[in-house]
Amino acid sequence: MSDRYIDFANSSIGHRVVGALGLPSPVRLERWQAGRLRPIEGALLIGGGPLAEKVSTLANRLTDTIYSYGADPTLATAWIPGHGQKLKAVVFDASDLVQVDQLKQLREFFQPLMKNLDHHAHLVILGRAPETLSDPFAASTQRALEGFSRSLAKELRSGGTLQLIYVGEGAEDQLEGPLRFFLSPKSAFISGQVIRLKACEAQVMDWTRPLSGRKALVTGAARGIGASIAETLARDGAEVILLDVPPAKVDLEALAARLGGRGITLDICAEDAAAQLIEHLPDGVDIVVHNAGITRDKTLANMTPEFWDAVLAVNLNAPQVLTKALLDSGTLRDNGRVILLASISGIAGNRGQTNYAASKAGLIGLAQAWAPLLSERGISINAVAPGFIETQMTAHLPFGVREAGRRLSSLGQGGLPQDVAEAVAWLAQPGTGAFTGQALRICGQSVLGA
Amino acid sequence: MSDRYIDFANSSIGHRVVGALGLPSPVRLERWQAGRLRPIEGALLIGGGPLAEKVSTLANRLTDTIYSYGADPTLATAWIPGHGQKLKAVVFDASDLVQVDQLKQLREFFQPLMKNLDHHAHLVILGRAPETLSDPFAASTQRALEGFSRSLAKELRSGGTLQLIYVGEGAEDQLEGPLRFFLSPKSAFISGQVIRLKACEAQVMDWTRPLSGRKALVTGAARGIGASIAETLARDGAEVILLDVPPAKVDLEALAARLGGRGITLDICAEDAAAQLIEHLPDGVDIVVHNAGITRDKTLANMTPEFWDAVLAVNLNAPQVLTKALLDSGTLRDNGRVILLASISGIAGNRGQTNYAASKAGLIGLAQAWAPLLSERGISINAVAPGFIETQMTAHLPFGVREAGRRLSSLGQGGLPQDVAEAVAWLAQPGTGAFTGQALRICGQSVLGA
Repeated sequence: MSDRYIDFANSSIGHRVVGALGLPSPVRLERWQAGRLRPIEGALLIGGGPLAEKVSTLANRLTDTIYSYGADPTLATAWIPGHGQKLKAVVFDASDLVQVDQLKQLREFFQPLMKNLDHHAHLVILGRAPETLSDPFAASTQRALEGFSRSLAKELRSGGTLQLIYVGEGAEDQLEGPLRFFLSPKSAFISGQVIRLKACEAQVMDWTRPLSGRKALVTGAARGIGASIAETLARDGAEVILLDVPPAKVDLEALAARLGGRGITLDICAEDAAAQLIEHLPDGVDIVVHNAGITRDKTLANMTPEFWDAVLAVNLNAPQVLTKALLDSGTLRDNGRVILLASISGIAGNRGQTNYAASKAGLIGLAQAWAPLLSERGISINAVAPGFIETQMTAHLPFGVREAGRRLSSLGQGGLPQDVAEAVAWLAQPGTGAFTGQALRICGQSVLGA
Repeated sequence: MSDRYIDFANSSIGHRVVGALGLPSPVRLERWQAGRLRPIEGALLIGGGPLAEKVSTLANRLTDTIYSYGADPTLATAWIPGHGQKLKAVVFDASDLVQVDQLKQLREFFQPLMKNLDHHAHLVILGRAPETLSDPFAASTQRALEGFSRSLAKELRSGGTLQLIYVGEGAEDQLEGPLRFFLSPKSAFISGQVIRLKACEAQVMDWTRPLSGRKALVTGAARGIGASIAETLARDGAEVILLDVPPAKVDLEALAARLGGRGITLDICAEDAAAQLIEHLPDGVDIVVHNAGITRDKTLANMTPEFWDAVLAVNLNAPQVLTKALLDSGTLRDNGRVILLASISGIAGNRGQTNYAASKAGLIGLAQAWAPLLSERGISINAVAPGFIETQMTAHLPFGVREAGRRLSSLGQGGLPQDVAEAVAWLAQPGTGAFTGQALRICGQSVLGA
């Protein structure tokens, strides 16, 4: 399960060998450690348009060291290029750029920073979603941010990441949750992504235990990514209910005991699965994570009906049926969170995975289509789409496939189950209602896409 | 400009060497030859839901040999698995699949065909755009088609391609134009794409000279892809007006003379460019192809203001300004066609191309935002996004970059300028109004994406 090449490239000898041979030198990413309090350990630089002030008002909850650059100098200490003040986090508001000529502000703002970024720096650009703008030139200009952001994300080194967040009309007050996530090591393996925030009701949150008082159901929780999700939700204060198939009972119960939660063994494809599940959740549930999933890979020419049916039943039909039952029965409470584990295969497609990719694309479509209807009850529904994650499954891939999966990304490595778990835990927070109907890729900006 | 590896892999010795060593063996793609009449030279198989009948009514204009499979057997001769009837084209209507369980029809339909596809077979799956469906499960099921299609496209061999076409409510009568393109060699280098058709007014068309009587302006037309576009538009009957910068005057005039059109030398970034252009087009224009574009690559850390400004001015600002002027002055006529040359970089981003990717993403955003407004006048606006195309520019790339660009795609090779030109010529047709506001990738299903 470990990436020995990263171990080697980051050893003192390996570092020199890799450098001399011109090989890729992926850094060991910085991850969130339990007990840490501040999202940013280092300096945050804020600049750009009107939302910069908004960010400034919450910045002191993110870090102690705040600089401003190019924006209203009263916001914070001015950052001076060439003074060597290293930056751990950067937020630039580009939301008021509406003409092509104004895009040069991107170059003017970011260029001086590029040589002053700390290791594992996290950058965020704020904009307005093009589809919400009536002027085609303004929409075009805001869409240009996407090309800029994805390119600049590919130029970052030393574990740096960059996201573009399109802030919807009325969503300006929803920035704290996303910034706490995307400017911190919780999003270490996410880069080059475009995120949309929509207006929603604000939620009071305890940021140190963001899931306190919330009940979370995780399917496929006995091991791997599911277990990591359960641990992370518990770390953040949730009461966890772990579900897996009967053969996994021993592992499941052990994990549940360790996390102070409980286990449910259940075949999610059984005729009476929904009824059984509702019975197991008499007090309701706030968070549902559909993590259970299987692969049965074959090219379509050799795909058996059993392989096709099993993957579609477990990966797509069960989440549909169970979520609907939880909703209809009132088991899933208002302001609930539904998180579907999709995959990069559901976006890009993959040879040998017509069944799997169909199921995962279906989950992305489910989130997108259901979100507007569920928002009336304050419920969000999203998909996460992991890229190459270091698990027992990927450890058994052939060498070439595994290395390609790891290196063909901006971060030059695979992610860890924790990276997926952090994203799920973030989406599970009461304060992320502005993010709904979307697919969040967790892929180190893999080159694979559609 | 030639891909010597393809030459080698398709020679009699090379074929054996490549096979023995397990190297990639990209086939030489079949392209459209001037003078050809039928879109499909071989058998077309039709199956699936209610749109299959719609397709059957126009099928005899596409080819002589029509089979049906799994659909109403009165539609055409039944295709029988195992009888060795090779298929050159396939259309499957999946638009009525609304439940997960029904998706198995995809496996049932396509599996028997996979070993009976002819070389350079072109496949199309029809569906309904998820965002237009009110039932979340139906939307999810239709979105699943995307994962299936992109995966199956990656499993095709021998130059096979596959697209998913989402047919909008009321767009059922707009299928002939898209099928003529996507089932023919005109779309040889397009695969794994998702296309959306919207309802629009039907146009009477002469399919043998689809641009007859139309005036087309092409910028950057003196050489490369621009010249190829001009030639293809002229081949299809358009009267071409070629624009390029003054230094390209000799080449431009020569090409214009050969194509029976005329040349305009003009700096599209000049203050009075729009006024000059309108003066040159007293009789109006039906088709505007914004092909002129430049690269000035540098990482952002080293990007000069001049490099930034030049790329944004030529690639994004000029198309915005000129198109608006052509519209406002009435020079661009009703039922006009605007085609913007974007790039895969504008979708995926690219290291060293923050300026270029921003400009190309901006063009994609321009098409998307402007399309609904222009549709009132019957005008469509689209972007095309070429991937790796064999040109003088790519011929000078370093070996590794060039080979990666060529091979990291389902078709395992770069495209030709003709491939871009065919897509542009298709989008320029009066009968493609149903396709608007989109970015059509011409990339051989490159793995590069977002």
